[in-house]
Amino acid sequence: MTNAMLDKKRPFKGHKAKHFLFETDEDGRVATITLNRPERKNPLTFESYEELGDLFRSLHKASDVRTVVLTGAGDNFSSGGDVFEIIEPLTRMAMPELLSFTRMTGDLVRQIRACPQPVIAAVDGICAGAGAILAMSADYRVATPEAKTAFLFTRVGLAGADMGACGILPRIIGQGRAAELLFTGRSLSAAEGHAWGFYNALHERPVMLAEAQRFARNLADGPWFAHAMTKKMLDQEWSMGIEELIESEAQAQAICMATGDFRRAFEAFAAKSKPVFEGN
Amino acid sequence: MTNAMLDKKRPFKGHKAKHFLFETDEDGRVATITLNRPERKNPLTFESYEELGDLFRSLHKASDVRTVVLTGAGDNFSSGGDVFEIIEPLTRMAMPELLSFTRMTGDLVRQIRACPQPVIAAVDGICAGAGAILAMSADYRVATPEAKTAFLFTRVGLAGADMGACGILPRIIGQGRAAELLFTGRSLSAAEGHAWGFYNALHERPVMLAEAQRFARNLADGPWFAHAMTKKMLDQEWSMGIEELIESEAQAQAICMATGDFRRAFEAFAAKSKPVFEGN
Amino acid sequence: MTNAMLDKKRPFKGHKAKHFLFETDEDGRVATITLNRPERKNPLTFESYEELGDLFRSLHKASDVRTVVLTGAGDNFSSGGDVFEIIEPLTRMAMPELLSFTRMTGDLVRQIRACPQPVIAAVDGICAGAGAILAMSADYRVATPEAKTAFLFTRVGLAGADMGACGILPRIIGQGRAAELLFTGRSLSAAEGHAWGFYNALHERPVMLAEAQRFARNLADGPWFAHAMTKKMLDQEWSMGIEELIESEAQAQAICMATGDFRRAFEAFAAKSKPVFEGN
Repeated sequence: MTNAMLDKKRPFKGHKAKHFLFETDEDGRVATITLNRPERKNPLTFESYEELGDLFRSLHKASDVRTVVLTGAGDNFSSGGDVFEIIEPLTRMAMPELLSFTRMTGDLVRQIRACPQPVIAAVDGICAGAGAILAMSADYRVATPEAKTAFLFTRVGLAGADMGACGILPRIIGQGRAAELLFTGRSLSAAEGHAWGFYNALHERPVMLAEAQRFARNLADGPWFAHAMTKKMLDQEWSMGIEELIESEAQAQAICMATGDFRRAFEAFAAKSKPVFEGN
Repeated sequence: MTNAMLDKKRPFKGHKAKHFLFETDEDGRVATITLNRPERKNPLTFESYEELGDLFRSLHKASDVRTVVLTGAGDNFSSGGDVFEIIEPLTRMAMPELLSFTRMTGDLVRQIRACPQPVIAAVDGICAGAGAILAMSADYRVATPEAKTAFLFTRVGLAGADMGACGILPRIIGQGRAAELLFTGRSLSAAEGHAWGFYNALHERPVMLAEAQRFARNLADGPWFAHAMTKKMLDQEWSMGIEELIESEAQAQAICMATGDFRRAFEAFAAKSKPVFEGN
Repeated sequence: MTNAMLDKKRPFKGHKAKHFLFETDEDGRVATITLNRPERKNPLTFESYEELGDLFRSLHKASDVRTVVLTGAGDNFSSGGDVFEIIEPLTRMAMPELLSFTRMTGDLVRQIRACPQPVIAAVDGICAGAGAILAMSADYRVATPEAKTAFLFTRVGLAGADMGACGILPRIIGQGRAAELLFTGRSLSAAEGHAWGFYNALHERPVMLAEAQRFARNLADGPWFAHAMTKKMLDQEWSMGIEELIESEAQAQAICMATGDFRRAFEAFAAKSKPVFEGN
């Protein structure tokens, strides 16, 4: 199975999405997904949840797309699950349907984590409920000073345990701060989010998305096979002991050392030139 | 088993504690536990350890009490295990007794974590040894600028591995900072504790306890069945892998979606009114 | 097996290292390891990796050395694996050799974590690649304002999964910040590293090493049997659930309470004198 075969199989450049925008750079390396119902602050619906999950799943085998930027249209990221299109129907469902729904939303997080591409969340304005979860699920987060992130499940009578938040958020910002956000549903300001390590960087509104894409581009031009291994191991070692994680990394890094990209990087270094990575 | 049955079984309003103060709001929803030997800075004794553990255990089945505030009298939180009432007897005990003691103290942390009520620590002045552990075990921590927290087990020749500190403290403030506090026993200032995410908020002495109780009241008037699930899952997912924690939350949230509180919250939202939660 | 036997067996005072400097205080309690090829910014080689791992392994049974300071000569900590002495040969190795290499480097981290002595990293200037890993593996980190730490494996086409970094670094600085450093290989400034909890303290260049040694000396004069237990439990509880870690600490602390050091500390406290710890 060569990369060329994979490329032929999954030509993401030109891919059209139904419930959001999907665009790529000229060479297809950086994909940008834009939640695009700005008049409603980009809520998620049953359909967009499912299509997003399917898209990230299909990216698992893609070798053209190397990084993904996730953002929202019209100065907001996402208001989360729509109250009338999602919450209302849920209040009338029986348990099997409810569990199907929570598994489907959880699956979106799973696919974002499992796809080999680093995912960059570019957050502006409202970032609430499932929107906050999407941001949390990314590998790198940038925001504007206007970003307001709220894990507001408690406001509709639900637990903070939504799509992995009780397990993942504490690893990003610490157990005490995560508990506060999940119990209260209060809004996290951009400044707090940056100070707490939720956001990696803040940028002003006019340049924020471009900065996120520039960051994504830099990663995409880097050793993307190795990046995919970094992402895999960050999750794989989540609940390993120290002995086990050291052995796991010995194996993971040995795999990377057997790639041509490693040799290419060394040769470029020795020649004082810029390495060109091929992902093999 | 209805909530009414539980209420009849466990009427916490009016409950009298022997070794500390136990008080509740008018409707019993917010309980405040006050360590109350201010002339000795509220040390713990064999008896108060045991009664505290028993109290938190009995709260597991309570449905009247929805949040617990834990504080100390006289401008101090707690000086921890009393040197003459606890340390001295321990130096003369045989191993089975020592293990009984360390298991009893550990059990207090276990009961605080296992009770469904979010626990709010309201910390002023000295917060040392087992006192620091009590604060660490809470779900939310506020302090005055005068709070001084010290995990000072090392000062009596012991390990920082006391009542769960080596496992829990790193998840709140990070592995490096936790190691420093546990190896040195040094005092953590309120400002540092806030910057590190140990304290969620700082308040001036005259209003700190009231602020802690106001926070507790807000949670108590919220969806307390869901809050209990949030608390449970924060601990339950502690050492799960990402795959497992996502499935666990799918189940946990489906349970919450099957409650009347979820429907009530939606109906209140649609009617632009304030939801009244019933915990079922 | 008495401590005296151990001491006779492993007299570290006067020990000579081949590929770095090894020095101790007068009484042998504080050992300082200095990476010492300053003209090359103290790179690691196959030989120094192996000797370092062997040294930390032999420290497991030492009772004279109680803390270890790890530093670099000439205003730099370490530039990591040498590009021509390590990277180049690796690009020509077959898989069994590659895996032997990554296991050997991982073993160095394992020995640093497994030795009972708290390890203090004293970081100045360049701290890159395997150098950054060494700093990360320590129990306590101090740095000068000039310290520049970079997990730059990505720059040679490799994964951030090197010697445990994907598992350990997130526990120190949080998942989001760790991901950024490991994906980008960018330099972490001393100020950021301090704000993020990577460095415990910053000191100016002329006094930094002395401050690190003073800190190490204070720990060495403390209850070192208990310190070793603190270190062991910080790692041992890494991936335990809350129930299990509480029981583990009940056992660990009961062991410490059965030591003479505990009694000595109490007696010194009662006599208002300074305790003298014997490690038993």
